[in-house]
Amino acid sequence: MANDNKKAFVEHITPRDENFSQWYTDVVTQADLMDYTPVRGSMALKPYGYRIWELIQAEADRRFKDTGHENVAMPMLIPESLLQKEADHVEGFAPEVAWVTHGGTEKLTERLAVRPTSETIFCTMYAKWIQSYRDLPMKYNQWCSVMRWEKSTRPFLRTSEFWWQEGHTMHATAEEAHEEALQMLHVYRELCEDVLSIPVFSGQKTEKEKFAGANITYSVEAMMQDGKALQAGTSHDFGTNFSEPFEVQYLDKDGKLKYCHETSWGVSTRLIGALIMTHGDERGLRLPPKVAPYQVVLLPIAFHKEGVLEKVKEVYNTLKDAGIRVKLDDRDYVSPGWKFNEWELKGVPLRLEIGPRDIANGVATCARRDVNEKFTLPLDNIAKGVQESLDDIQKNLFAIADKFKQERTKDVHNMQELEQQVNTGYARAMWCGERECEDKVKELTSATTRNIPFTQEPFGDKCVCCGKEAKTVIYFAKAY
Amino acid sequence: MANDNKKAFVEHITPRDENFSQWYTDVVTQADLMDYTPVRGSMALKPYGYRIWELIQAEADRRFKDTGHENVAMPMLIPESLLQKEADHVEGFAPEVAWVTHGGTEKLTERLAVRPTSETIFCTMYAKWIQSYRDLPMKYNQWCSVMRWEKSTRPFLRTSEFWWQEGHTMHATAEEAHEEALQMLHVYRELCEDVLSIPVFSGQKTEKEKFAGANITYSVEAMMQDGKALQAGTSHDFGTNFSEPFEVQYLDKDGKLKYCHETSWGVSTRLIGALIMTHGDERGLRLPPKVAPYQVVLLPIAFHKEGVLEKVKEVYNTLKDAGIRVKLDDRDYVSPGWKFNEWELKGVPLRLEIGPRDIANGVATCARRDVNEKFTLPLDNIAKGVQESLDDIQKNLFAIADKFKQERTKDVHNMQELEQQVNTGYARAMWCGERECEDKVKELTSATTRNIPFTQEPFGDKCVCCGKEAKTVIYFAKAY
Repeated sequence: MANDNKKAFVEHITPRDENFSQWYTDVVTQADLMDYTPVRGSMALKPYGYRIWELIQAEADRRFKDTGHENVAMPMLIPESLLQKEADHVEGFAPEVAWVTHGGTEKLTERLAVRPTSETIFCTMYAKWIQSYRDLPMKYNQWCSVMRWEKSTRPFLRTSEFWWQEGHTMHATAEEAHEEALQMLHVYRELCEDVLSIPVFSGQKTEKEKFAGANITYSVEAMMQDGKALQAGTSHDFGTNFSEPFEVQYLDKDGKLKYCHETSWGVSTRLIGALIMTHGDERGLRLPPKVAPYQVVLLPIAFHKEGVLEKVKEVYNTLKDAGIRVKLDDRDYVSPGWKFNEWELKGVPLRLEIGPRDIANGVATCARRDVNEKFTLPLDNIAKGVQESLDDIQKNLFAIADKFKQERTKDVHNMQELEQQVNTGYARAMWCGERECEDKVKELTSATTRNIPFTQEPFGDKCVCCGKEAKTVIYFAKAY
Repeated sequence: MANDNKKAFVEHITPRDENFSQWYTDVVTQADLMDYTPVRGSMALKPYGYRIWELIQAEADRRFKDTGHENVAMPMLIPESLLQKEADHVEGFAPEVAWVTHGGTEKLTERLAVRPTSETIFCTMYAKWIQSYRDLPMKYNQWCSVMRWEKSTRPFLRTSEFWWQEGHTMHATAEEAHEEALQMLHVYRELCEDVLSIPVFSGQKTEKEKFAGANITYSVEAMMQDGKALQAGTSHDFGTNFSEPFEVQYLDKDGKLKYCHETSWGVSTRLIGALIMTHGDERGLRLPPKVAPYQVVLLPIAFHKEGVLEKVKEVYNTLKDAGIRVKLDDRDYVSPGWKFNEWELKGVPLRLEIGPRDIANGVATCARRDVNEKFTLPLDNIAKGVQESLDDIQKNLFAIADKFKQERTKDVHNMQELEQQVNTGYARAMWCGERECEDKVKELTSATTRNIPFTQEPFGDKCVCCGKEAKTVIYFAKAY
């Protein structure tokens, strides 16, 4: 009975082109990544979803440490008075803060915000910790969850609570802080492209779209299979906007007291949403091997027959010893076809079937999740063959997504072209730089500016909206 | 100037026997593990303190996964109605809950608790996730912070917010749940003894001291250098106490709907407090190599001289490549003596000095932090010598602490002996099992029952307090 329920479950994924949004929800829930909870707008990450996050964390954390950052843990509650110290910041975040007003039975004299982000508490502590130029740079990061009281929510994309990392760094000079912000954007691009196989547009946000309190916000923007944009990571240069009100100062070599220059940068469990909408297909998830909880699923075929289970276990141990994440599915109460469906739904990159005939031939029958193609790998030196396949899948998923991204990005020369293009993808346009045109494009097309690319390559001299002199190339897209 | 400040700083550690509590605070702050924050009772974990936690986490997490547990993430806010479903539980936790009452400008219809622990939300989700016996056991864990609105706080030992892991598991039978609770206590014992070099007393808590809502609570109890007990980890068998009100049921093979049997278990950043108070000395921390952020500090001596820095860097790379966590301290603005003090304060297990004379002799001059003893290691095959020293330090710290624990544990036969013994350590006593005697001992001596050892070895037949028939051996101690 349980099986029949599940079977029906697996088969009911809404086709992408019929209803992309429903397809997404179907995949998220049926692949067992998360579940809804009784807490408004908050999700629970189930083991399979959380394991993906752990793998993303490990890849990101290693890169943070390699670039000289250290992890810390800050309080999750932030006194209201701290939030109010930077005017733009409080204006941006106050409407979506969850407030703690009571401790036990006692009413608090000051409300405490469940952190929506931690600039204010980091600055408070940095002001204590930094004295001299010798303490700089101070480059800390924390892994935690934050809370933003969202009106409407979608799993991984927008939830009241979400899991993320937030790096906060202090530097002696404006140049150094600026370099740090760019460096971390580069780390995010690498994380997206090399680890998640998600190609991105790197660039600078407009004044309108930048973070509340920042001088400059950089972003990496991904393209989902419905052509919409998903902001995958941001990196901010604050200058001294926070260090002045929070008095984060250092004594320089010249004996003068100076304000520190600050950055912050973050990626979140949103990246899991990006993974799904970049790589998923009609059969469910397709996971890049580097973040797949199981890179290989191993299925014994006709495993009541002598020698099958022994051989499969031998292969299992060989792959495990080679550092490959492998799952042996030896359930005897579901059919192989059932298992195929389930592991395809869960996006396992490589499936190996081993039955009596395979063993006789000295091979494993393989199926890659990225392409519809069966092949065999010799059981001798199986780990090498598997690793090569995984490497190829990792690259191929990127290539597929990159081709899609290029096909769905077009230069537009007028509002008509822009309006049409943002229905299917990104519009590259010339822009005068005025907020007015940005607002007008949004009003007419519901597309927003994504970012201003570092490499400009202008293709005209007139603003796509007002026709006046263009100052920059910019990407427009509808966004999550 | 900065140096002079710091120098004075390092030297001002209150002697342990003068004021143990002040010694603890001095070490915690001066070794740069944490700092106080403007949030009542909440601390910030600084990089050095957080790195110790990361290393503890890695060791624990590996053991959880090896015993078949998976990580998940649950919402940090829990609706008040969920907390109220289990009577003992809400009674135990309600007085120390931080309440969220507003989201943005909107007053919530139901208050939300910042989780003090997560039994209630886990049970809510398990009720959705578990259908049949095939789904069992379900063994999940989460790493997070929790909040308990404490009146008086001490770094790592008792803070409003603290970081921990909480495992929550569901089983088909009472026996299985009971085995799980014991298994995880065993994991905690191993974590304390093999990783943290902290010997512990394993046993069962009394009815009075058990967790709010549990049938049985097991604990591992450590002994600090002032003879006081510190509860290092707990593991609870809930039976069906939560699964009944939360309706966590499964369809068994026999077609009947049955309640699941539950456990939960946790260790927290308290373990860092235990580390300090078990191993620290007059010069500061002494860290077991397995959780030392730096296992080795490498100091170049007279490093303006030709070849010194090159050689030291070569040794640095050799050790790093061998997987040893090594810090090269090549600051040229502080003296070697200064560096000695600082790294001793921070508890680095092994110091290597390399100067022109050492290089000429083909050795490194070494100092172990656990014993006051200098020796040399040949530069050829230095990684092997270092690893052997680290292994020995790890074992020796345990041996020192274990000797202390044994010396400070005594059998007591009457209240006078008990009262005396709990001033310096643990009292092993015979107990009638009645709450009345437990309360009386606490009232008269301020010592509490720690736990009932698994191996009993009774040494009398009369209760230490009332003189009536004794039912069990039990440990009493004053506790953090």
